[in-house]
Amino acid sequence: MKEAVIGIDLGGTNTKYGLVDRTGDCFADGSIETHAHRPVTEFIPRIAQAITALLQQHPNVSVKAVGVGAPNGNYYTGRMEKAPNFQWGERVELAKLLSEALQLPVWLTNDANAAAIGEKLYGVAKHFKDFVVITLGTGLGSGIYVNNQLVYGHDGFAGEIGHTTVFLDGRDHTTGRKGSLETYVSATGIKRTVFELLCNRIEPSPLRDLSYNQMTAKHITEAALQGDKIALEAFELTGKILGLKLSDTVAHLSPEAIILFGGLANAGDLILRPTKYWMEYYNLGIFKNKTQILISDLKGDSVAIQGAAALAWEEWTKHQ
Amino acid sequence: MKEAVIGIDLGGTNTKYGLVDRTGDCFADGSIETHAHRPVTEFIPRIAQAITALLQQHPNVSVKAVGVGAPNGNYYTGRMEKAPNFQWGERVELAKLLSEALQLPVWLTNDANAAAIGEKLYGVAKHFKDFVVITLGTGLGSGIYVNNQLVYGHDGFAGEIGHTTVFLDGRDHTTGRKGSLETYVSATGIKRTVFELLCNRIEPSPLRDLSYNQMTAKHITEAALQGDKIALEAFELTGKILGLKLSDTVAHLSPEAIILFGGLANAGDLILRPTKYWMEYYNLGIFKNKTQILISDLKGDSVAIQGAAALAWEEWTKHQ
Repeated sequence: MKEAVIGIDLGGTNTKYGLVDRTGDCFADGSIETHAHRPVTEFIPRIAQAITALLQQHPNVSVKAVGVGAPNGNYYTGRMEKAPNFQWGERVELAKLLSEALQLPVWLTNDANAAAIGEKLYGVAKHFKDFVVITLGTGLGSGIYVNNQLVYGHDGFAGEIGHTTVFLDGRDHTTGRKGSLETYVSATGIKRTVFELLCNRIEPSPLRDLSYNQMTAKHITEAALQGDKIALEAFELTGKILGLKLSDTVAHLSPEAIILFGGLANAGDLILRPTKYWMEYYNLGIFKNKTQILISDLKGDSVAIQGAAALAWEEWTKHQ
Repeated sequence: MKEAVIGIDLGGTNTKYGLVDRTGDCFADGSIETHAHRPVTEFIPRIAQAITALLQQHPNVSVKAVGVGAPNGNYYTGRMEKAPNFQWGERVELAKLLSEALQLPVWLTNDANAAAIGEKLYGVAKHFKDFVVITLGTGLGSGIYVNNQLVYGHDGFAGEIGHTTVFLDGRDHTTGRKGSLETYVSATGIKRTVFELLCNRIEPSPLRDLSYNQMTAKHITEAALQGDKIALEAFELTGKILGLKLSDTVAHLSPEAIILFGGLANAGDLILRPTKYWMEYYNLGIFKNKTQILISDLKGDSVAIQGAAALAWEEWTKHQ
């Protein structure tokens, strides 16, 4: 029998799941639509059925546990609490519901923490004791390690660097807060910056042919790689604000490394160079040229599944 | 024989030292001038002599270890590194020099970390696993606990929240950086805010009779307690900026409590009320009304000595 855990990456649109062995290899996976606007009681049997079907295709696998990365997933309580865009109620007993449906132990955390655990177990953070993972997707998430331990805070919600404030009366956010980091630094944030530049600058740009709803971070990356001035300036500004706020993070935690992960991180040097430059620029003297910024080398669709699976392996091993 | 450790609070002007028992009681103390502008090789024999004299007055005391809180004191290396206002060189082997002079094991950390250890062992943080201590003196220092452990970061310099950035092109700082938290929130910071208000407002105020070099945070507190509008607004603005940046800290660490300590903290509700209000205002929903802000109840001149002594007790106990 091959030992494995189930990793679940629960997103607002799709839920991906996979079987992951001890080395982090996701050797089987699948995906269903989440239907975040429908009750969670409809989601649970659908995901259980999908996973059961996957397991039937792998009869030689002994599944030990389940790890879930979900928006506002709380490690301490096993609940999803106040997750934006989900109409599942203020507090959903997700770990409990999944555990009952799958008859397996289930551990839950938020998606960025799952990514950090994945980096620690399988990625570039393997040898770091103190590091921070920044996930650059639709929003900006973060997972923090201090002295080889993931930081949960007193209530399980530590690591929300995307909701620190950059500008007091800055950009609106669906939370009602203003000027938070993720309104500048994320797939959505860089698009908003492009729109500011399309207004302020006069250069022609292929980005002028796309509506706000059409444009994605991928369009911006492609335009930048073609030398488009608007797109290049948008990356510069995005890196400047990320660098500024990472220097705040360095002042708190003095990590060995900060690891960028997710869609926008795939733009590589376009985001890495200005982020490094400005983080060092804003860093206090004693911190200068000490904290590395790295791009995650965990590639492909199964990364978030691997992260959630890493949580399951870590917790299951602890409980043996 | 009574067991004790020596706590040393090394400041830019004076160095205080004391004998502290296991309960945190500082039962004997003394003070010498630091002479930070003279070589450290003159300081070491002077402090050793002063401590030896104190010990001779307490022949029934068995001293176990020495703890030192010093600006930019590094726990990992035992060095003071690039301490502002000290002409002791870039890297001073302070723990080693003191250990040789006193023939005792010496542990070093920075002053704010020492305060945090003191709060954990003897103060209001006794029952907290995750908390942050903010020291409001001439500058703003901080010490962070995560899961019952002081956060040192990879290089021993974590916890420099005073050097996070509030405004991109804000107030000058001796470090060359601009707009850092301690240029707004500290004894110096609130004085600078008073001077901005003396310029912008037209109300009469007793603070208009004091020069920049004459004015202290104590004058401002006294004026505020008398109802002076300028002083009251200065506290309001100081608390607003501290609250804003503490909400960034909460987003990183989600601590149970934040403890204010030092001169400005003694202004009590004048600083506590606006800080609480604005921290909650800027907090993300999931963090609201969870993190307490408390004023340290460790009072008197020996607090910093107790903090340094707490480090010595903690480390000495670990090494038994």
